[in-house]
Amino acid sequence: MRHVALSTVRRLSLYLQFLEEIERAGTTTVSSRALAERGGATPAQVRKDLSFFGSFGKRGVGYPTAELAARLKDILGLGHRYRVVLIGAGRIGAALAAYPGFDARGFDLAAVYDVDAGKIGKLLGERHTVRDLAGLETDLAALPAQIAVIGTPAAAAQSVADRLIRAGVRAILNFAPVALSLPPEVTVTNVNMALELEALSFALKHRRT
Amino acid sequence: MRHVALSTVRRLSLYLQFLEEIERAGTTTVSSRALAERGGATPAQVRKDLSFFGSFGKRGVGYPTAELAARLKDILGLGHRYRVVLIGAGRIGAALAAYPGFDARGFDLAAVYDVDAGKIGKLLGERHTVRDLAGLETDLAALPAQIAVIGTPAAAAQSVADRLIRAGVRAILNFAPVALSLPPEVTVTNVNMALELEALSFALKHRRT
Repeated sequence: MRHVALSTVRRLSLYLQFLEEIERAGTTTVSSRALAERGGATPAQVRKDLSFFGSFGKRGVGYPTAELAARLKDILGLGHRYRVVLIGAGRIGAALAAYPGFDARGFDLAAVYDVDAGKIGKLLGERHTVRDLAGLETDLAALPAQIAVIGTPAAAAQSVADRLIRAGVRAILNFAPVALSLPPEVTVTNVNMALELEALSFALKHRRT
Repeated sequence: MRHVALSTVRRLSLYLQFLEEIERAGTTTVSSRALAERGGATPAQVRKDLSFFGSFGKRGVGYPTAELAARLKDILGLGHRYRVVLIGAGRIGAALAAYPGFDARGFDLAAVYDVDAGKIGKLLGERHTVRDLAGLETDLAALPAQIAVIGTPAAAAQSVADRLIRAGVRAILNFAPVALSLPPEVTVTNVNMALELEALSFALKHRRT
């Protein structure tokens, strides 16, 4: 498959969330205009986004809601289940272990790791006993994981990422405030509320001056 | 000031977080190489990022930690306090009202709004009584806010954004799963965990096929 831009993938996610809402409301067809409003795109962009993945819908009739939703789920890989390991049993780890959207997208949190002797062996949330990070490679050799979540302090994040990748992990969700240096075959997305707030603050400040 | 790319602003945030850590550890100077590692950049990129905002550091000596941190805080607008309104007193709203990083960056949560009669008049967190969204314009005319957080369902987000902008808000942190259509003078950042997870899922799926 040709390269698909991250901005396109994000629009597909927005279309899918919209389709699931209107499907629950009983709407059976949807126009490219309605999808465009939700995805911040033009109707032409919607048609282009979707045609990239095959043929959908009929001119003048719109797209069949359920069929398009099923196809987008498949394109986004949401039919799979993924084994996920979480490194860092702190505040972010606890929030993620409790986040229902994680499981709903096929992300099975298989194990949680920390280096803190005060946390190892204790429960994080209701289901996960925190494991010693020293055993990461042994565990992943026995039961590989496709995805890792890094919720460590910034100073530890790069070395944890290096270990994960050597152990076969191919996608990382990074909450640590550091730009990870990773080989091109590894996908990373970063979530950092502080950076979002500071981007707003920066924009407001430099509007004034 | 010339246009500064969002990627540059994000690196500045990462440099600042690093400087604050090493300042607490008592380190008084820092090299562009150490900053580069944290920001996912080259030392040359660090020098370019910083020189854009004036002259810092001495060749061969490095940057003075405290001075550079103070300057970055100023550049990022973190010396100001901002009045923030939150629309949507649901799960995201409750998490934000409890998030310490919000206050630490000068974001004062001034008021919380909802349309749900079951929530209006009740407390969100420890300090905020949920107000009726119908009174938004009246409140903002009396006490303007620079920043709004949108934590509504997707279907309501665009009309809420339109009302906020007409009432003078100039920066929006959007948690609703919709791409908002906004005038160019309004800054928006989007936070959506579902989209991050689906981007990872997409990447894994299309690596395999």
